[in-house]
Amino acid sequence: MNTIPSDLLLNQLRWRYATKQFDPAKKIPSDTWSALEESLRLSPSSYGLQPWKFVVITDQALKGQLPAISWDQPQARDCSHYVVFAVKKGLDQAWVDRYVARISEERGVPADKLGAFRGMMLGSIEQATKDGTLDSWQTHQIYIALGTFLSAAALLGVDTCPMEGISRPDFDRLLGLGAEGFESVCGAAAGYRLDSDPNAHLAKVRFPAAEVIAHR
Amino acid sequence: MNTIPSDLLLNQLRWRYATKQFDPAKKIPSDTWSALEESLRLSPSSYGLQPWKFVVITDQALKGQLPAISWDQPQARDCSHYVVFAVKKGLDQAWVDRYVARISEERGVPADKLGAFRGMMLGSIEQATKDGTLDSWQTHQIYIALGTFLSAAALLGVDTCPMEGISRPDFDRLLGLGAEGFESVCGAAAGYRLDSDPNAHLAKVRFPAAEVIAHR
Repeated sequence: MNTIPSDLLLNQLRWRYATKQFDPAKKIPSDTWSALEESLRLSPSSYGLQPWKFVVITDQALKGQLPAISWDQPQARDCSHYVVFAVKKGLDQAWVDRYVARISEERGVPADKLGAFRGMMLGSIEQATKDGTLDSWQTHQIYIALGTFLSAAALLGVDTCPMEGISRPDFDRLLGLGAEGFESVCGAAAGYRLDSDPNAHLAKVRFPAAEVIAHR
Repeated sequence: MNTIPSDLLLNQLRWRYATKQFDPAKKIPSDTWSALEESLRLSPSSYGLQPWKFVVITDQALKGQLPAISWDQPQARDCSHYVVFAVKKGLDQAWVDRYVARISEERGVPADKLGAFRGMMLGSIEQATKDGTLDSWQTHQIYIALGTFLSAAALLGVDTCPMEGISRPDFDRLLGLGAEGFESVCGAAAGYRLDSDPNAHLAKVRFPAAEVIAHR
């Protein structure tokens, strides 16, 4: 196993910031981007259910339509790759069965040996449906993927800007997400900062460790 | 800037899995743990508001009380460090002002020059309060921190198990979180896997890239 030194990890997490101005001329190399897509795919999720779709937008004309539905923030237009994080709404037995089939395939285990695990997942989904928390539970998983993606990008030297300030219904319509049972949650622009971005030169602001972390 | 090779990133993200059996005898070295706490502190959040408290539990007697309020999962007891991720409830002007004061201090900018940014944050909080989405918005940030933490740990060779299956009210009572205005959201056990953990040897299961990632 090849781990990384902790100071390298922290240097890159400190280097990361919410990029306001991307260099429109700089594109992420395809091998780097492939790794970032794979980091999305590998993101942890509850039961491993992966209740998501990631829509990667590189078409410049389409990117040009995004600021108007993102509070006029230009990052979506100027970045290299824009990712829309969408959640599966109303996660159901069909989704669970597709997942169980995939486990069976990848691990060479007959699907009927996975009945207990399947039942546990269906039980949790049924309970969450009763409680009215199914979609919010799955939406939480989207933010795990966002955190994974932002960290992975920083480690590869790629700038990002997470964007919650988007008009989700407009993104859904533009990308046709609703027809597939998904709903946009948030976005992330990825690319390379302009040196002229004033925010690139500001000190990172965090509360002191003693106010954020308690020990027991 | 020292980035890491993308295959090293992906190897570690593939090495990661939700550890079921930790080796109770193996403790995370203090310098490694300090880096993981710092990765939590550096996590991105909306406006940088850091609506969280991370409670790190290492006391063995306290850890021993956790399985009973975690669906009898033994990870919290057997891991080296257990982190409770708690969200600030009812984020308010006092929190914003504390943040603005911190920006002022860290960047050497008079607080009254930060009025526009302060107003924007307060406006978003007011709107979210009206919409009834304030706490869920802040809870989303907790999951960004969880994703950051799980990735950071994997890169440093530390095993983890994210745990949503906890009795949040019991954690709040045990740790006195409510008195401080916080509420537990989820937990993460961290330490080192036992080689006898059957899950350590299972293939990671993910849907094919073509089903998870769309390109436009």
